[in-house]
Amino acid sequence: MGNDTVKIGLLGLGTVGGGVAEILAGNGDEIKKRLGHRLQLAGALVRDIGKQRDGSIDKDILTTEPSDILENPDIDIVVEVMGSIETAYEYIIRAFKNKKSVVTANKDLVAAHGKELFEAAEKANVDLFFEGSVAGGIPIIRPLKECLSGNRIQEVMGIINGTTNYILTKMTYEGREFQQALDEAQKRGYAEADPTADVEGHDAARKIAILASIAFNSRVAYDDVYMEGITKINSHDIQYARELGCVVKLLGIAKETDGEVEVRVHPCLISKEHPLASVKDEYNAIFVKGDAVGKTMFYGKGAGGFPTASAVVGDIISAARNLSLGTTGRIGCTCYDNKRIRGIQEVATKYYLRLNVKDRPGVLASIAGVFGNSNVSLESVIQKRMKGEMAEIVLVTHEVQESNLRDALSIIEGLSVVGDVGNVIRVEGSD
Amino acid sequence: MGNDTVKIGLLGLGTVGGGVAEILAGNGDEIKKRLGHRLQLAGALVRDIGKQRDGSIDKDILTTEPSDILENPDIDIVVEVMGSIETAYEYIIRAFKNKKSVVTANKDLVAAHGKELFEAAEKANVDLFFEGSVAGGIPIIRPLKECLSGNRIQEVMGIINGTTNYILTKMTYEGREFQQALDEAQKRGYAEADPTADVEGHDAARKIAILASIAFNSRVAYDDVYMEGITKINSHDIQYARELGCVVKLLGIAKETDGEVEVRVHPCLISKEHPLASVKDEYNAIFVKGDAVGKTMFYGKGAGGFPTASAVVGDIISAARNLSLGTTGRIGCTCYDNKRIRGIQEVATKYYLRLNVKDRPGVLASIAGVFGNSNVSLESVIQKRMKGEMAEIVLVTHEVQESNLRDALSIIEGLSVVGDVGNVIRVEGSD
Repeated sequence: MGNDTVKIGLLGLGTVGGGVAEILAGNGDEIKKRLGHRLQLAGALVRDIGKQRDGSIDKDILTTEPSDILENPDIDIVVEVMGSIETAYEYIIRAFKNKKSVVTANKDLVAAHGKELFEAAEKANVDLFFEGSVAGGIPIIRPLKECLSGNRIQEVMGIINGTTNYILTKMTYEGREFQQALDEAQKRGYAEADPTADVEGHDAARKIAILASIAFNSRVAYDDVYMEGITKINSHDIQYARELGCVVKLLGIAKETDGEVEVRVHPCLISKEHPLASVKDEYNAIFVKGDAVGKTMFYGKGAGGFPTASAVVGDIISAARNLSLGTTGRIGCTCYDNKRIRGIQEVATKYYLRLNVKDRPGVLASIAGVFGNSNVSLESVIQKRMKGEMAEIVLVTHEVQESNLRDALSIIEGLSVVGDVGNVIRVEGSD
Repeated sequence: MGNDTVKIGLLGLGTVGGGVAEILAGNGDEIKKRLGHRLQLAGALVRDIGKQRDGSIDKDILTTEPSDILENPDIDIVVEVMGSIETAYEYIIRAFKNKKSVVTANKDLVAAHGKELFEAAEKANVDLFFEGSVAGGIPIIRPLKECLSGNRIQEVMGIINGTTNYILTKMTYEGREFQQALDEAQKRGYAEADPTADVEGHDAARKIAILASIAFNSRVAYDDVYMEGITKINSHDIQYARELGCVVKLLGIAKETDGEVEVRVHPCLISKEHPLASVKDEYNAIFVKGDAVGKTMFYGKGAGGFPTASAVVGDIISAARNLSLGTTGRIGCTCYDNKRIRGIQEVATKYYLRLNVKDRPGVLASIAGVFGNSNVSLESVIQKRMKGEMAEIVLVTHEVQESNLRDALSIIEGLSVVGDVGNVIRVEGSD
């Protein structure tokens, strides 16, 4: 690095990379006053140099050759915003070997190879920052790792997928069914043509795995996360949730109890009084409970070029500060524990159950009897008359272990008076 | 500092100091794993050594002699949680002279002497951290200074006084009048016997001055803040706010426009859809708008021993990390600009106006005429019949400069059909 200038190499110049370039250009003078050094965009790896781009980007810094960034001795900090897993991993390892600090916004990569990346960064004594990889622009990684580092974190619970929150907001406030809301989300660019990763919870699972790893100081991988998506939620569930004083949200949830960790992504009913309940549209929020701080929440845009670039530039400034002070590698991997991950069968929550039953006397009694025998106690019951001789019953249980609930449900599904189980949704955030 | 241990000296062992001691004792092993060093409480300045205290505190470390902490070569970090301004200032300056980093949770001190303290810390090349001085446990100083440091911050708007938020919550959701709600707050320990500093906005003003200084990189002092309290808010205002789709909150507001800063504390109507609207009881939240990140919000407990101690311990850990790496003084004072502060007359907002008028034809027309002549345009009007021949009219203006509104109001107060102006409340957060 020069006396006055820290040189940045971008891997990727898409939505986020373009946002980073634009912030460095537009807010460069302010950043120099804050940091004491100018951040100069000195190279950008792209697929196609000839592609039409924003006029503020100097064509001379574009390259299709990774080594122009990774092995360039002039470049101090490499910013990986290209996406993908294996290629990005290879490039970052090469950057570390060349003693470059790295900033990434790639959650798939951090969720898949976080451990190896942190070890490699530590070995090279450089920084690896990844604030942009979870919840876009919302400051959450640094607050967890630094501001709340005096706490034992007990719970992290977040709306960490904007697509599904947009869909559920449309279903809740505009009466849409799932498919209609998904169509709208796709039209507005909030959902991909193939929406699987969002609506089935895979994206949220990668994020909650990263958050859980930091919160509980123990590696949690994507494969450790129990997942259910929102495709089965319908307007009946939304309406019953409202009657119960709740809204339906897709949450990433991680809790530590007795030294063990549970981590899951699924739709939830949460009370309208809970701070997460009012997080609407494509916004994200992460609710954190610590033993000293109590309940906190971090809210903002969880995706998009500029919000994510905001997090990336914050990380670049931190990395540049460490470079200039000669103290890269200040905070390495914080996963010093190896806590057991609980299976979903061991998890205890409240449940919302929607059952289609024959509308005749004694049905509720026989269902309640099965629950009683399985140690599932009921908190509330809503009964709705439906077409023909079928009725819809909604039950909310007290807290019960999942295995007990499943046992009870398998018996109930076999009852002659029960048509089918319409939906089972966990209820969270009531404490 | 020893090889393995960083020694902490507390100035004050009240609610926050006691919380810090308890966290260091209870979470000491976890903190050691995160930091690499044990944080040892090595001294605590108290008024009365004989006072009954929590059993976990070693009596041998208590002292009534400031120099046992400030001039003690064994102590690495001084934690000022004693309150007061001048004595705390003197002690911190002495700590700096002895090359000790300082953590403080004293907003009065930071608001009054922030500039001198940062200069002294910079000169001594030690750290001064103050996360606990604003909004208790909520991470906000570090997110602003680091995570969002790529942004130009445009607006900071916060519920930063728990007492008034508790009172307004009781008025909004339980139909209390101000005095009843204040009585309850006092009974529950949320309000002081003399509630002036809270209900008149002085406490919030000190906090928004600190936040504005950081957000806009320009010193904003307590005296720069325009203040109005909540004592004039009554149940009519709460009810009309509801009809307008709003709630009433006491907000600290700081905005930068065209290189100039406005900073104020007063009650506001904000839309129920705004993220701040659902912040209830004694909780605090700070809404931040940046040019890259967009809208973000930070929520949690803004006061209390453990939440504030959470922030203090986070700062101690950062200071200890810097000590161990030999990089104290990484981020000094960030007030490198000197932006003009706008007077309240120059500020433009929407206004809610409640007027008591004679209930006769043409009244509204004559009032509307005055507003029209003063370039105040109206967004909505609610009219309520009242006792006798008086009626209550509620108007909401479009955005208008305060000086224009005041001109119009002084004419309206002189109209023979107008009894008096019941209340004037600004409307915020509608963009």
